[in-house]
Formats: sequence, structure tokens, C-alpha cells
Amino acid sequence: MEEATISQEMFTVNNLWIMLATTFVFIMHLGFACVEAGFVQKKNVVNILFKNSITPCIGLLTYAIMGFNLMYPGSDYAGGWFGFSGFGIASPEGDAGLIGYAGGKYTYWTDFIFQGMFAATCATIVSGAVAERAKLLPFMVFTTIFVMIAYPITGMWKWGGGWLNELGFHDFAGSSLVHSVGGWGALAGIILLGARKGKYTPTGIKPIPGHSMPLATIGVFLLWFGWYGFNGGSVLSADPGAVSLVFVTTSLGAVSGAIVAFVTAYFMFKSYDHSMLLNGILGGLVGITAGADVITPMEAIIIGAVAGALIPFAVVFFDKLKLDDPVGATSVHLVCGIWGTLAVGIFGEGKDIVAQLTGIAAIGVFSFTFAFILFYILKITVGIRVSESEEERGLDITEHEMEAYKMF
Amino acid sequence: MEEATISQEMFTVNNLWIMLATTFVFIMHLGFACVEAGFVQKKNVVNILFKNSITPCIGLLTYAIMGFNLMYPGSDYAGGWFGFSGFGIASPEGDAGLIGYAGGKYTYWTDFIFQGMFAATCATIVSGAVAERAKLLPFMVFTTIFVMIAYPITGMWKWGGGWLNELGFHDFAGSSLVHSVGGWGALAGIILLGARKGKYTPTGIKPIPGHSMPLATIGVFLLWFGWYGFNGGSVLSADPGAVSLVFVTTSLGAVSGAIVAFVTAYFMFKSYDHSMLLNGILGGLVGITAGADVITPMEAIIIGAVAGALIPFAVVFFDKLKLDDPVGATSVHLVCGIWGTLAVGIFGEGKDIVAQLTGIAAIGVFSFTFAFILFYILKITVGIRVSESEEERGLDITEHEMEAYKMF
Amino acid sequence: MEEATISQEMFTVNNLWIMLATTFVFIMHLGFACVEAGFVQKKNVVNILFKNSITPCIGLLTYAIMGFNLMYPGSDYAGGWFGFSGFGIASPEGDAGLIGYAGGKYTYWTDFIFQGMFAATCATIVSGAVAERAKLLPFMVFTTIFVMIAYPITGMWKWGGGWLNELGFHDFAGSSLVHSVGGWGALAGIILLGARKGKYTPTGIKPIPGHSMPLATIGVFLLWFGWYGFNGGSVLSADPGAVSLVFVTTSLGAVSGAIVAFVTAYFMFKSYDHSMLLNGILGGLVGITAGADVITPMEAIIIGAVAGALIPFAVVFFDKLKLDDPVGATSVHLVCGIWGTLAVGIFGEGKDIVAQLTGIAAIGVFSFTFAFILFYILKITVGIRVSESEEERGLDITEHEMEAYKMF
Repeated sequence: MEEATISQEMFTVNNLWIMLATTFVFIMHLGFACVEAGFVQKKNVVNILFKNSITPCIGLLTYAIMGFNLMYPGSDYAGGWFGFSGFGIASPEGDAGLIGYAGGKYTYWTDFIFQGMFAATCATIVSGAVAERAKLLPFMVFTTIFVMIAYPITGMWKWGGGWLNELGFHDFAGSSLVHSVGGWGALAGIILLGARKGKYTPTGIKPIPGHSMPLATIGVFLLWFGWYGFNGGSVLSADPGAVSLVFVTTSLGAVSGAIVAFVTAYFMFKSYDHSMLLNGILGGLVGITAGADVITPMEAIIIGAVAGALIPFAVVFFDKLKLDDPVGATSVHLVCGIWGTLAVGIFGEGKDIVAQLTGIAAIGVFSFTFAFILFYILKITVGIRVSESEEERGLDITEHEMEAYKMF
Repeated sequence: MEEATISQEMFTVNNLWIMLATTFVFIMHLGFACVEAGFVQKKNVVNILFKNSITPCIGLLTYAIMGFNLMYPGSDYAGGWFGFSGFGIASPEGDAGLIGYAGGKYTYWTDFIFQGMFAATCATIVSGAVAERAKLLPFMVFTTIFVMIAYPITGMWKWGGGWLNELGFHDFAGSSLVHSVGGWGALAGIILLGARKGKYTPTGIKPIPGHSMPLATIGVFLLWFGWYGFNGGSVLSADPGAVSLVFVTTSLGAVSGAIVAFVTAYFMFKSYDHSMLLNGILGGLVGITAGADVITPMEAIIIGAVAGALIPFAVVFFDKLKLDDPVGATSVHLVCGIWGTLAVGIFGEGKDIVAQLTGIAAIGVFSFTFAFILFYILKITVGIRVSESEEERGLDITEHEMEAYKMF
Repeated sequence: MEEATISQEMFTVNNLWIMLATTFVFIMHLGFACVEAGFVQKKNVVNILFKNSITPCIGLLTYAIMGFNLMYPGSDYAGGWFGFSGFGIASPEGDAGLIGYAGGKYTYWTDFIFQGMFAATCATIVSGAVAERAKLLPFMVFTTIFVMIAYPITGMWKWGGGWLNELGFHDFAGSSLVHSVGGWGALAGIILLGARKGKYTPTGIKPIPGHSMPLATIGVFLLWFGWYGFNGGSVLSADPGAVSLVFVTTSLGAVSGAIVAFVTAYFMFKSYDHSMLLNGILGGLVGITAGADVITPMEAIIIGAVAGALIPFAVVFFDKLKLDDPVGATSVHLVCGIWGTLAVGIFGEGKDIVAQLTGIAAIGVFSFTFAFILFYILKITVGIRVSESEEERGLDITEHEMEAYKMF
């Protein structure tokens, strides 16, 4: 595509940044693990940690086997809707191949590992929503297929050069392609699973508080940290102006999401709700992700603020529908992911709101349908929910024969 | 100031390092959150996490609104003592503006976000010292005003090109401008708040142990990690010789602070005091911060050692004065911040100890007075301390209607 | 050695990467602290945190005093088996010295601090294995001498240009030179210490579960994160092709170690064993470390898989021998370290399996003997094990007069 007339020095610094961004995205998996573990009950902590540990492993391995070549099939193999360039990964030969691969922005290996780290994040979003009652083995099967096939297909539509890209759809770092894909998967899962026992009672909604706010807080900070690589790396070079602008818009989105979420929640619930503050940070980050490269800092503050305001309303809304999401993943990733993608059409110069709406709808229909069918097949075959007595005892003992803590 | 005759490659690598250093300083906010949460009682953990989560948000937002332009007003607007170049942030236009902004060292956006991450750290220092009895809302008001106005003004005196800079005062990365500013604010707060109930009794000092040493340890390591960006980024370029020397002096300051603090504490208390070890690391880091660029590794070991030795004595000293500081923030940030600034005058070649003393005194008088008046106004209006019964029940329930842990 | 005809830009980006890699290796110390703390009982948590905090301090300080000059004595001072170029550290003078030091790859200071961060990791491996019954003071004496003398000597054999390097032994980032050295030290320690009271009973092995799986999980993720610097930095430049390949092989080693370890453990123990999953990740990482630069991604998957399969068998094996290792350090670092070094001889093009076996044996004999003698001298003089009653009460109270948690 681009000529490799770039200097070896520029190639090296560009590539270094994308490799570092990869490590930032990696640490987001620890962030997810901590957030989700913090927000579940003590008896299900090992289970959620296990899921969050195995998910990036499954994600990277399947991405090496076929995901990468499904998402980035290259112009020879791509159709508008589907393309595939074969199993396995292999770098173009020689030094010329390395610098020539992406016009001196990164190597083939960097490309693979950066994109591979992204892949598993959408499955991780699902794991939080279905926590405390999903069976482990079918969840791992779901993760494998969803990450290996569903995520790369919609990813190709835009980032792989497919039909949404042709249409002018803009999703910089994945408000839709990553976060809402995970959010749609989560929604399918919680519909088919049903709520946790005792959450929605005839006398009202009984909150089931998470077991550790320090863990949840650590997780949110690590996610915020990782987002600098998630968004900053999505510039796909170390371009000083572009990456530093993304750092500023990303930061201000998080910041204003946090403040507006806790203030909104204060007026709704009359207390300083720490969970809402944390999810406000995440909502702001998800919201800013689609347009972090094309908006001004002031617009970033507005986008983050709307995302932050959406969070407490979305949490209440899903609860009204008896859609039980222990960590608020659908509120954060689905609702704010849609909002962020839409916001590009509103604020992004020269961006087309119809293309944005088309992308949101197409990605939503595909991801939700895929996830729903997959979960449904698992439900009617092996079953996706643990038994009532297992749920009561907690998955740590029933699936892992282990307790998360021995405090006595 | 400098000519932009630098290559695009060097600009890119310089800017990359300062952006990365920004992420290191960001993670210090998680470090502070963990240290402070670890050192408070279980019943006040959500409260301290909330404060440490909202503080960087307030800091970044107010820095965008006016702090940045108050601290770095530029030569057209700066006086020796005060300057301001207007509200909001906006980058110079075009690619030439980007590389021309700081002579090819970083972009305008990088400058803003790096300095913005610094800003909130001083307020975070205060939050630890006033923990377990300060009311949340007035604390947030204090943070907003202190970070938005007080921190940038003394910051301008040196880093913005003001009168302390003219005088030859040297404070490389902020032993005074960041750490002692926070420390003075902390001191003002704990004087006006008074000690926690039951700490100083007629029969002696009753230690109130922190609730989680793992959390405190995680926090200290994250702070140490972040300090590589705090100090290393303060070189303001990726200059190999300068940044790598700073990495070595910073490391050796931490290391020798740690060892001397625990040995000193061993002789004072006859046990291997883990809190003292942790605060020794932090004390060494604070101590090295003012001169990390102008001293030798051997001098770094000496500066760190003195800082480490000061820690247990300072903790005992403040307790003698009945100044109750649950996390030892004044010992670490104020005492070692002063020591580090002074040490530049002793060890730094061509540095002037009179200028150092002048800077310490001027920054101290301004910051302490500002913080004291601000806390005092809040005290006589809305009140800054929770009621006795709220203190007893813990701020997690009374301010947040939430418990930090559900372990049963 | 190499000509410094490299550009200042390339020097700057190379050096930046090695400095960043240093911070990654630094965070591994927090990773070790969390893993080891998570896997011990609540009553010994402060003790293990103290050890893991002081170990990098001792490591860096002694490396500055003599370790660095023992490991990298330079061609003037090196023998094949031993060399030393004097106490203390000092950079070559001037800018030319900086860029000339390593052919424009990094500065003297970067070299020191990167290698210094590595040094302490081997002692940290020991601390986990001897946890819950080793006396603190003799452990610190052991750490000091082992890191200051033993680690640099075998390190010199290969990385300092000694006889193993001449022989063609290949150990890219230290499967043997770091991990198995630590593993051999650990083995010597647990032989001389004996098992924890109540672990091996006449009626069978009584598992002593760790006190916090979240802590252990955080630790493993941080170690994995750090490994990108540990392996990626061992390229010793920011070479895009080489570093990015190492990122891919390292990732795939971890991933396949994880999956195979938990599946193997599932067939052995009929449950999804989270500890085995975590140690499978670490085993895969240790295994990939010797050859991460010379193997293909597919080979990385195989090497990681074998390492993952070895983990549960090694844990059972050491338990059969009544060698009590609370965190599985010998299984992870010794067994997989040996495997990884061997694997280079099997998969690495042009690598010599005899040289690999020679290196494994020579490093093993030296390290184990050194550690055994050192521990033995400490055992017959000051004693290395706490008393039975101290073990029962826990080292937190007896050594530190402190509890890790105050949860009530």
C-alpha cells in the first residue's frame, strides 16, 4: 500500500511503539481479571480468575491458528464480507520484507501480536457478564469459537478493508469492533443464562455486592493504563502529533466519564457510589475509543460526559429488564460502545452518521446472532448453567475444588 | 526557545519517551491508591479508593481548564511570581507547530498530558494524610482548588521560568515542587483536622495498623515503577546518557533508602518493620528526585540512605507532636522532599545551597499557607471532619453505603 | 567490539527500549512478590513481602558494588571461568563514550541497570521455595552472597564472554543463567530446610493451600508482562524483526504452557486447577526464554506445551521426594529452565545439544554446590529455620510483629 521509503530509524521507533502498545493491551487482561473478580462474590473468584487467565491464552492461540488471517486476509483474499488467507502465521522473508510489510510502521510479528492481544478482549467482556452461574467448559468453547471466527469477521469488515471500510464507517480503536462485539456477546449470554438466583425477587431487586473494591479499583486503573496502548497503538505508528492527541482525548474521556457518572449516581442514589465512579471511567474510555483520533479535547470531554451519564441509567435499565450482569459489562461496553461509535458521526469532521449507524447495526446483528446461536447450541447440548446447588456453593469449589482465600 | 533543527526521527523517539513517561506517572495514582488503602483500616477503604480515583480525574480536568496555562504561561504572559495565558488547551497548528513546539522534544499534547499527570500527585499525597476522618465533599473541593491554583503557581516559579528559576534553584523532578507541596498541604490538613479518635490516649500512642500489607506493598512497587517515568521523563527528551543516569540514581536512591530505613527501624523497634521498609523506599525516591540528574550513583546511595534514616525518626517525631498521619505521607513527602532539595545544594556541582534553601522556604510558606487557609475556610463553613459516630462506623458505610470487602 | 557508526537516532531508540525493558524486569519483582504471597499461608505473608521487597534492593546494591564487574569484566579482565574488573560503577567519559560503549545500542548506565534488574530475580526464586519456615536474617545473608558472587560468575561464563560462550552454548535470556540458577539455589535451600510442619504426614501429603488466589493471579500476569522486557530486552537493541519475533515466541510459549498445564492437571486431578494454570503460564515462559530468539512460533508452541505438561508432573515428583516447595518454584524455574535450555539444542538451527547439556550441567553443579555450601554454613552457625513454635504462630508475628491483614 505505502512505499517503504521510510528510514530504518523511523521504522524502529514506530515498531517499538506498537510492540509497547501490545504490552499495554496485554495488561488490560489483568485489568479485566481484577475488575471482574472484585465485582463477583467471594465464592466465585477463582472461577472468574481462571476464565480471565485462560481467555487471552485461547485468544492468542486461535488468532495464530486462523483469526489473524480471517481478519486481515490481505487484498488478494479479501471479499467485502469475508476473506481468509490460510492457517498459521509466517513472516515475509528477510529484512526487506520486515520494513516493507507495512510501509515501515511495524513488522509482521508486531502486527500479529498487537492484533492478537485485541482479539481476546471481546471474550473477556463476556466472561464478566455471565459470571457466577456459567459453566466453565461451555464458556471456554464459546470463547474459542467467538474469538476465532466471529470477532475476526466483523473486524475484517472495517480494519481488514471490507465493506464497512468502503462505506466510510469510522471506528478508530474499536468502540464497536471490540467493545460492542463483546457487549453483544455478553447480552446474548445473559439472556440465555437467566439471572443469578435471588437477584430479582418478587419484592424487588436484591443487590449482590462484589467481594472486593480494592481488586475492582486496581482493575479499572490497569484498564485505563492499558487503554493508552489500546487507543495510542491504534494510530499504527509513533506519529508524535497523532498519538499524543489520542493520549489527551483518551484521558479526558475517562476523566469526564468518571466525574459525570458519580455525580449522576449521587443524584439518583444519594451516595458516592464507588462502583459507578469506576464504571464511569470505563464508560468514558469505551465511548472515546471510536473517535479518539478525530475529535478535539473539548469534544472528548463531552463524549466522556455523555458516556458517564449513560452508565447509571443503563445499569438501572438492564436491571428493570431482569438482565443480570454482575459487573455491568453490557452498560459499559455495549451501551457506551454504541454511543462512542455514534459520537464519531456527530463530532468527527467529515464523518457520516449514516455509515456509523449502519456499522453499529450490522456489527450488532452479526455479533448478537452469532453469540446467541452459539450459546443456544451449547445450552441445548451440554448446558451452559451450573446447577442450583452448585451456584449456591459457588463455582470455586464445584469447578476448581479450591477457595479464593484462606483468611483463617 | 530552541531551534527545531532536529530530525523527525529524533522528535518521534523523544516524544514517544515522554508519552510513555506519562503512563508511568499515571500508574503512580494506582500506586498511591494501593498504599493509602493498605495503610488505612478496613472500614475506610472504599473512601480512600474513591478519593484516589477521583483525584487524578479532578487534576487532569482542572489542568486542562486552567492549571497548565497557569504553570506554563509562556514568556509573553509570565511574570516572575505569577502568569496566566488563558483558559483551555489548544495545540499550535500544523506539523511545523508540532515539531517546533519544544525544539523537537515533544508535542504540545504530550507536554500537557505529562504535566497534567504530575499535577494531581500532590493532592493524592494529601488524601493519605487526612484519611479516615476527612469528609469527602470538602476534600474534593480542596483538591480542585489546590491542584488548579496552588500547585501551578509554585510550579511556575521554577519550571515555568519564574523567579526561583532565575535564582538558580534546582529541583529536577519535584522533590519540592511536587512532593513537599503535597506534604505541606498534608500538614495543614492534619493540623486542622486533629488526630483520629483513639490514636493519642492519656496512656500513650495507640498504633492503628493498616488493613492490608499486600495492598500497601503493591502500591509501593507501582510507585517505584512509576518513578522511572516521573524522574526519567523529567529529562524532557530521550537523551540516552541523561535518562539512563537518572534511572540509575533513582534506583540506587530507592534501594539505599529501603535498606537504611529497615535497619534503622530495627535498632529502634527490634523488629523487621515492613511499613518502614516500604516508606524507606518511598523516602529514598522522594529524596533523589530533586537531584537525580546532577549527582553520581555514589551520591545517590548517600542521599537515599539519609532519606531512609529520616523516615523512622520523622514518623516518631510527628507522633510526638500528635500530628496523626495514617500513611506517613508527611514523613515521606515533606521531610524527604526537603532533604532531597537540600541535598542538591550539598552534592550538585555548581548548585547553590542558598538558592535551595530559598526555594524550600518560599514553596513551603506559600503551599502551607494556601492549604491552611483553604482547609480553614472549609472547616468553618461546611466542616472538614466527619462526626464521631461516622468515624467509628467508618466512612465506607457513611459516605458510600458500601463495604470494601464481602468475605463471608 | 562493534563500530559506533550508528546514528544518534538509532542509538536513542535502542537505548530507550533497553531502559524500558529494565522497568519491565523491575515489575517482575512485584510479580514474584504477589505470586509468592498469594501461595503462602496468611500468617507468613508479611514475611514473604518483606523478602521480596528487600531482595531487589540487595540485588541492585551488590550489583553496583561488585556483581556487574564480576559478570561483565570486559575482555581485559575476563578469564574463561572467572574475571573481575574492580569495585563500583563508572561510565566512560563524555558523549563519545556513551554511544561508543556498546556500538550505539545502549549506554553504560542502561547496561548496568538492565543487568542489575536481572540479577536479583534468581534470589527471588529462592525466597518462594523456602517460604514459611526460613529465618529472615540468614536468608538475607544468603541472598546477598548468592546474588553478589554466584549469579555473576555463571553469568560471565556465557553472557560475559566466558568458556560456555566459546563452547557455543546458547541461552538467550536466561532459562539456565537466571531461572535454573535460582531453581538450583531453591533446591539446595529446601533440602537443607526440610518440609513445613504437617505437610508430609504418615497418612499422606497434606496440601497447604495458599491464602489468596487473586494475589497469585496478579503476580503471574505481572510476571508475564515483565517477561516482554526480560526476553525482548535481551535482544539488546530495538531491532524490529528480532524483538517482535521474541514477543511472539514468548507469548505463544506462555499460552501453550497454560493450556497444556491445565488440561494435563485436569486428567490427573479431575478439576480445573487454577494453580496449575498459573504455573503453566510461568513454566511456558521459563521454557521459551533460552531460545526465544532462534525458534519459530510453531516451535514456541511445542516448547511451551512440553513445559506446561512438565509442571504437574514435577510438582507431584518433588512432593514424592518430600521436597516441600510452597510456590512450585523448583518445578517452574528449575525443571522448565532445564527443558528450555535443552530445547534450544533440539529446535535451534545450528545449535549444539552437547553444548546445551554441558551448560546445563556446569551451571547446575556450580550453582547447587555454591548454594548448598552457603546454606549449610548458615545452618550450622546461625541456623536457617525458625523454631517449631515460631512456624506455628507464623513469621509475620515472630519476625515482624505485624499481621498482613486486619479484616475485623
